[in-house]
Amino acid sequence: MSMDDLSTPNLTRAENTPAAHVDSGSSSAETPAVEAPAAETLDMSPHDLATQLVGKLCHDFISPAGAIMSGLDLLEDPSAQDMKQEALNLIAASAKKMVTLVHFARVAFGAASSSEAFSGAQLEKILGDVFSTMRAELVFAIPGDTLFQKPAARALLNLGLLAGNSLPTGGKATLTVESTDDGLTLTADAAGPRARLKAEAVEGLKGLPLGDGLNGQWIQPHWLWSTVQEARGTLDFTVEPDHLVLTVKLPA
Amino acid sequence: MSMDDLSTPNLTRAENTPAAHVDSGSSSAETPAVEAPAAETLDMSPHDLATQLVGKLCHDFISPAGAIMSGLDLLEDPSAQDMKQEALNLIAASAKKMVTLVHFARVAFGAASSSEAFSGAQLEKILGDVFSTMRAELVFAIPGDTLFQKPAARALLNLGLLAGNSLPTGGKATLTVESTDDGLTLTADAAGPRARLKAEAVEGLKGLPLGDGLNGQWIQPHWLWSTVQEARGTLDFTVEPDHLVLTVKLPA
Repeated sequence: MSMDDLSTPNLTRAENTPAAHVDSGSSSAETPAVEAPAAETLDMSPHDLATQLVGKLCHDFISPAGAIMSGLDLLEDPSAQDMKQEALNLIAASAKKMVTLVHFARVAFGAASSSEAFSGAQLEKILGDVFSTMRAELVFAIPGDTLFQKPAARALLNLGLLAGNSLPTGGKATLTVESTDDGLTLTADAAGPRARLKAEAVEGLKGLPLGDGLNGQWIQPHWLWSTVQEARGTLDFTVEPDHLVLTVKLPA
Repeated sequence: MSMDDLSTPNLTRAENTPAAHVDSGSSSAETPAVEAPAAETLDMSPHDLATQLVGKLCHDFISPAGAIMSGLDLLEDPSAQDMKQEALNLIAASAKKMVTLVHFARVAFGAASSSEAFSGAQLEKILGDVFSTMRAELVFAIPGDTLFQKPAARALLNLGLLAGNSLPTGGKATLTVESTDDGLTLTADAAGPRARLKAEAVEGLKGLPLGDGLNGQWIQPHWLWSTVQEARGTLDFTVEPDHLVLTVKLPA
């Protein structure tokens, strides 16, 4: 799943890894040079937010869609009759990724108008499918019968994705929720070697414009920030070595 | 392709078709009752525009993605060995729809950051694939070497989709472009029996909030309006019996 580009350097903590992870600038799909200047990005129009979110989504979709087409080509190639099972496996795996992405995007990014509330069990299924292609392990420490209104469901899925993406070499992403009279506290705890937030993610989470990093790394954290803003909640995070905690509070 | 729901009644000209096309309200995916009140929709937050656009996209994607999964299930069903070719055909057709949708969405809705300009030939290919699943015929009367900057490319694809969707029983959707010192004029001419714009589309094209229609019918025309606004252009349309003309002018 290409929901995050794992080849992107850890800009946030680059000072701790001096020799490695220098961006070669070879990513033709998302070249920093074509990004809008920071000042414009902060004053983002509704149109821009939408195009960037859809751009990210299309970027995620194109890889499994293309893989399905490749699998079909392979199936029809008379000189590759011994590859039939591989081709079918590729098609099946890519179709599953596609469905996983669509189900995730409907709730995490879309209006998901068919449902006003989601159960913990539904959200665990959606996130579990996403984590099945990541190295990190999902610990969904939320009862299956907990009901989440749309903004809380959206925040939880985005928290979960961000926690998973912050553990590129594996670890545990634990999601919890606490409900009080004042509202809801959603927490994502990411623990594992090299747990970190990229510079773009930190900018996005703080509601800051993208600096000179990659837009594709910035938009999802920014979307989480935007989701929390929209719900008049607060978003905080702490970064320690090999350990991140992200906390979202939503009013009742 | 479910880029438009052809089962939706023609609300705009309902007075001319008294007995037919009354919405039974049975569409569980997009029930008007769950839409935001009109007054809130007009004052749409950036967040709302993005969620509604992504919601539409996911709605379009889920059908071919599900069909691919169904085809794979059929392939693996031992009691359906005589259906193998049908299953493969279903997978192939659905995968093509998916790729077509992603390619269209990247340029029409997304940031498409890998390319700053598009040729007429590129845009004709993208739109031609979309039209291959529609009843209307695309007449792309624009030279293949015409270069379109991103806003113009986005407007042209959205004009083309709208023209195609306005011809549910077939007809000709003709796209032309005229370049002057003042800028660019893009025209979509839709001619055919029952050519019409739904009430939702008219509201969207005028920058008005959605009335009591379906959000999925409103968001794409609204997106075209938003694209033109963003580019400081103008959008006009005329509706005659069996004939629509949509005109977008973009400044140089």
